[in-house]
Parts: sequence; C-alpha cells; structure tokens
Amino acid sequence: MEKEIVVQKFGGSSVADIQRIKNVANRVVSYKDKHTDVAVVVSALGDTTDELESLAFQLSKDPPEREMDMLLSTGEQISCALLAMAIKELGHDAISYTGRQVGIKTDKTHTKARIITINDKRIRRAFKDNKIVIVAGYQGVTSQDDITTLGRGGSDLTAVALAKALRAKVCEIYTDVDGIYTTDPRIVPEARKIKQITFDEMLEMAFLGAQVMQARSIEVAKRFNIPLHVRSSFSKEEGTMIVKETEKMEEIAVRGITCNKGEAKITICFVPDKPGIAAKIFTEISKSGINVDTIVQNVPHDRLSDISFTVPKTDLSKTIRVTTAIGKKIGAGEILEDRNIARVSLVGSGMRSHSGIAARMFKALADNAINIEMISTSEISVSCIIQQDLADKAVRSLHKAFKLEAI
Amino acid sequence: MEKEIVVQKFGGSSVADIQRIKNVANRVVSYKDKHTDVAVVVSALGDTTDELESLAFQLSKDPPEREMDMLLSTGEQISCALLAMAIKELGHDAISYTGRQVGIKTDKTHTKARIITINDKRIRRAFKDNKIVIVAGYQGVTSQDDITTLGRGGSDLTAVALAKALRAKVCEIYTDVDGIYTTDPRIVPEARKIKQITFDEMLEMAFLGAQVMQARSIEVAKRFNIPLHVRSSFSKEEGTMIVKETEKMEEIAVRGITCNKGEAKITICFVPDKPGIAAKIFTEISKSGINVDTIVQNVPHDRLSDISFTVPKTDLSKTIRVTTAIGKKIGAGEILEDRNIARVSLVGSGMRSHSGIAARMFKALADNAINIEMISTSEISVSCIIQQDLADKAVRSLHKAFKLEAI
Repeated sequence: MEKEIVVQKFGGSSVADIQRIKNVANRVVSYKDKHTDVAVVVSALGDTTDELESLAFQLSKDPPEREMDMLLSTGEQISCALLAMAIKELGHDAISYTGRQVGIKTDKTHTKARIITINDKRIRRAFKDNKIVIVAGYQGVTSQDDITTLGRGGSDLTAVALAKALRAKVCEIYTDVDGIYTTDPRIVPEARKIKQITFDEMLEMAFLGAQVMQARSIEVAKRFNIPLHVRSSFSKEEGTMIVKETEKMEEIAVRGITCNKGEAKITICFVPDKPGIAAKIFTEISKSGINVDTIVQNVPHDRLSDISFTVPKTDLSKTIRVTTAIGKKIGAGEILEDRNIARVSLVGSGMRSHSGIAARMFKALADNAINIEMISTSEISVSCIIQQDLADKAVRSLHKAFKLEAI
Repeated sequence: MEKEIVVQKFGGSSVADIQRIKNVANRVVSYKDKHTDVAVVVSALGDTTDELESLAFQLSKDPPEREMDMLLSTGEQISCALLAMAIKELGHDAISYTGRQVGIKTDKTHTKARIITINDKRIRRAFKDNKIVIVAGYQGVTSQDDITTLGRGGSDLTAVALAKALRAKVCEIYTDVDGIYTTDPRIVPEARKIKQITFDEMLEMAFLGAQVMQARSIEVAKRFNIPLHVRSSFSKEEGTMIVKETEKMEEIAVRGITCNKGEAKITICFVPDKPGIAAKIFTEISKSGINVDTIVQNVPHDRLSDISFTVPKTDLSKTIRVTTAIGKKIGAGEILEDRNIARVSLVGSGMRSHSGIAARMFKALADNAINIEMISTSEISVSCIIQQDLADKAVRSLHKAFKLEAI
C-alpha cells in the first residue's frame, strides 16, 4: 500500500532563529510515522531575504534580475540545510534539496518565474529510504540551468506545486496566525476562526485585502484541488481548511468580511457625456500600468457627469498625472482625490443562492449612519467604499448584523 | 586569434563589505580588455562561512556533512552574485555561476571533496559574448548532483583548476598580504618580498608553517604548470610569482625562512634498545591519526635510549595518552613533554646545488648562543628545533647571516 504524503510549508517567521528551527523539526518529526511521508518546504530565515536585497541595492539601484535570483535563492538553501540538520539531530533521517535538485523547472522570468514542471523522482526515492525531505522554497531553475525565484510568497507556490506532483493528501501552510478569521480580530474581538473556506472565497478575500496567502498559490491549489490547511507554527490547534466548494458550505451566505484601507478615490468632474469617452479615459489609464478598481459614473446633468474610481494609494500620484492630462484633452473639469476611503466587503459563495445580502449590508450601514460612496459586486462578494474613519465601525456592525460570531 | 585568459581569485577579506566588492569590481574591469578574458573566483564575504558554521553547530555537535556543504556553499554564491552586480553597474557585462553551473564535478567526500573534472563550455560561451565570468569558489557537485565543498582554502583550488581548464596564462591570487616574504616581516622588519619562488619552495614553506595558500592548490598548479601570482587586493603593486623552477632561480640557495611555533616535543625516556621497537612505537601513534614530524633517537646507554619527536600542539594530549600506554607495554620510562619549542627552517631549491647551507645555519645559531635540540632536513630545506623564546632571535640572525634582505 502506498503511504500517504503530507506537504508542510513553514514561512520565514517560523524559522526565524535556531530555537524556532528546532521547534519546526520537532513538529515535522511528530508527523512522520509509518503511514505518512513528509515533504517540507521552507522560506528563508526571518529577514534574510530583506537583508540580501539590501546588499544588492547598495551596489545598484536596479540590480540585474538574474543575479538577484542567484543571490536571493541562497536564503532558502540555508534554511533547508539547517532544518535537515535539526531533524537528523532528533534521530530521524532527512535530506535537503534546492529547487533545482528536485527538478522545479520554471520559465525565464527572473524574480517572478512560473513553475513549468516538477520532477518527483528524487523525492520519491528519498521517501523510499524513509527520509524526511526538505525543499528550499521560492526557487527553481530554467531550461538553461539559471536559478530563478518565484516572487514574494513564492514558497507557498513551491509547496502547492510539490503537493500536486506528489499527490499529497493535504498541503499545510504554517504561518504566524492560526488560521483565517471571519474578519480582522484586531478590529472585531469576536471574530471567529473559519473552519472551512472555499478556494474562491479565499481568492476573493485575498483580492479584497486579506493578507494570508499568495493568490497564485491558491489558484494553483484550486486548479488541482489540493486541500490547503492554513495553521499556526506555534500551536497544535487546527487552523483553516481551504477546500473545493461543497453543497453544505453554501448554507452560509457570508463567510467573512474584509477591509482594505490601501485605496484612494479619484474623481474627474464634468466629463462631457459622449459615447466612448469612458473607454478613452480608462484605456489611457491602463496603458500606464495602473490597476483601476471600482468605477462609478453619475447620472449626467447638462450633458456633463462625474466619473469616480479607486486605485491603490501607491499609484495615486501617477494616476493624478495621467488623468490631469486626459482631462485637458477631453475638456473635463477638476480632478479630485480622496485618500480617506476604505473598502469594506462581504465575501461568501453562499451569496449565489442567498438573495438580499447586498440589501441587508446597505441597511446595516445605514442603521449605523455610515454613508456609502461607491458600491461594487462580484458573484461572491459585495463591497462598499466608505469614509476610512468609519471603516472599523462598519466592519463591527456588519459582523454583528450577519451574526458571524455565532456560526 | 584566441584571446588570453586570466583567472583572478579574491579571498574573503577582499570582499568583506560593499565598498571592497566595488573595489574588486573596479580592479576586474581594469583587466578586461580587447585582448584578455577574465574569470573571477570569489570566496564568501568576510566571516560568512564562520557565521554559517556557527548556526550549524548550534543545532548539532556533529552536523551531517552533506547538509554542511549545502549550507556553506551559499556563502560563495552570495558573493559571486554581488560581484556580478557590481561589475554590471560599471557598465561591463558579467555573469555569475555556482560551482555546479560551470560543471565542477567532485568526488563524494563532503566538506573536503576533490575536483574530478571541470566543463569549460559555459564559461567559453560567456567569454564569446564578451562577459566577465564570476565563479563561486570552494564548491562543486557530485555525480549524484549533491553539492560539495572543497575544504578551507578551497577557493584557491577552484581558481587553479579553472585556470587549468581554461588554459589561462596566469592565475592571480588576491589576498590581504602583498606577496610572499623572505620571512615574517613582523619578526624581521628587513624581510623582503620575494619576486619569484618555485612551486616546490612554496610547498615546503607552506608545509613548514607559512600560511598564504592552500598546499593542495599549489600542488595542482605545479602539476599543470600554472603560474600563480600572489598579490594584494588593496594595491596595484606586483606580488610574488610562484613558478616552475628555472636554472637561474637556483642561484639563490635560501629563498626564505619559516618559523612554526605550533609544535610540541614528546620524549619517551629509557626505551629498551631492541630491534623493531621504534617501528612499534610509531606504528601505534600513527594508528591514532597523529602526524609525527621530526624524530630523534639518542645513542643508547646501557641498552636504553631516549626517543624524542614533535607533533602539532593540538594533538599533544592525545599523543601523551597513546605514548603512555605504549611506554608501559614496552617497559620504557617517563614521558616528557615540551610545549616551549619552535621550528626554524631555511627553504630554497638552490640547496640542491649549494653545499654547506646546514653548516652555515648551525654556526649562525651557535654564534647567537641558540641551542639546537633537533635537526631535520629535506632536499630543499633545513629545520632546527629550538626553544620557542629564542625563535624570533634565531630568525633575525639567520635572515642576516644569509643576507636575505639584500638579494
């Protein structure tokens, strides 16, 4: 009978110092038994990646990306060698591999490469020898044998891709939080750890501002239906399972609430109400590489209307520049900016079958005297743009209105 | 016409910080011209190797050697990526490679592997693209694709092996001293930088205590007749050429003087004067892995004689244990130890054709009231064991007697 396989991924904070590496070793060893083989993916120790990056930026404002990958990939190589030592010290056999050594082939997009294939041969051979396998996360190799990295959060991707190649029953993502919460517990103390969430819900939450896992990794896990278990490396408690949607999961309309304070609102006033004018504006903006989110256009008065939209705050000054130029060209009025906004969103795949969620949301906000400035919806989410200083109050009200603390 | 090729090796102190890496980049670039291709070998930044080792020893008293190599090899990977960045910043094209990427295949002796082959294809291709090639020193890969390291000083070996594979006209070893001196300038201020020294002389000096280059690297350079140029990375001055012996070089009888204070003397008293007894003693000692050097046996009195020999101080307590046991078995007397000794040696391949060097040495020491306790000679050296507190005086006297400051 073939053994079950578990892939475990430990982030940088889980291996930040020698004591934590020992803790991880203990945890890994407690999983490995007669019936389970374990492949572990590790990130670089604590702040190693930042430190290496800073060395590079002392040499060049724009370091060559191939060399950057050569440099940064060492961080994970260090941590996987150390973890293998720590596990061997506990009397278990372990072996560490670089991304290349386990045949993680990527394309040539240095610093954010995509995995093309993984060769599981070497890992399976090590499993046969009853070894625990440690793989350096975040890295691969091109067909030309150049080292690549997978972008920030890339170790998650390594773990998911390995889980797929090894047909693991679960991919555990160990982190410094103990799971996904109905909302940020710092805002709502009653926030509850979610037991199960669907891939789509998790993707939507990540997209709307929840920072737990890299979105690309969730997408890959979804594509190959690899259950993810997000849990804490500092406790034995179960975390949150990210899984394929089941009928039962649809019983709950709202899975969680996110709040994103990182956007700003731009308004172009008095835009002439002519066909094709909106297309013109947003084509120009997207050409500048700016990601526009929610767009709202007022009902025109005197053949003039206001167009508002949101962008990441980091793109704000660039956006002002671009829209000012466009505004002149099309004969629009003033350009207004508002940094003091927040996006509050309800997420839940149950929304597909439960109607009236948006209406209940608007009512809850109105009951708390919170004005809605913009609204946007997707199949499994409703978002309202409101004033930022009311955001925490809004999240608390919604959490209560949808009884998320009680589910 | 094929371009000339130079291999340059920079040690850890030459790349200890960002400013020094920039200096190295400048120096490398100043070499690269239309007629010369440059391959650079770098060690790990400053104390990186020690720091990584210390992490490993915090996890295990005896870290597994395969994992140790996985860990330590990152040091050189970091420095070669950074140097490539620094060179590119100066407007020259450069590319960094790990040992594996340039096909440095080794045997499986982790932590002190031997190079079996180097594949120069990738470097030659980079040269064709007019790139400066940076290679991570100290490392290779086994036929099973496991990373190995070549032991302390292994970057020298990488450089020499590369020089051989590339048929380089010279292999430059950049270090923090500006060459090989007739003797330690801290002892004899008049010590002079040697312009040319033969491989054999350099090997003998390394063996007798001079710490400039790893002996294995000199042996390989000798075998393939690759001229080595030992010079300072902090000045433009020429250093010392280590070359094949020429007739002219034999004109000088004594090339240099070394002094080694790292040995201790053991005396086994009253050893029964029977055939085979010395063989018995030194077979036992060598079985314990102790390297014995100079051995002296007194003329026997009453069928008993004293046997003295030297060992590295680090092996002293082990040696005492072993010889005490042997002494009992063969019915010898007391075991005496003397840590207060030094080995002072004259080295020069000219000794082969110049006679009377040893006699002149003994006379110079006698003239300065320095007692000789033991003597040993090789084809190109004479060593005297003397009391350690007289060692510096001995070196000064000999340097003067053989007029080394004037050559």
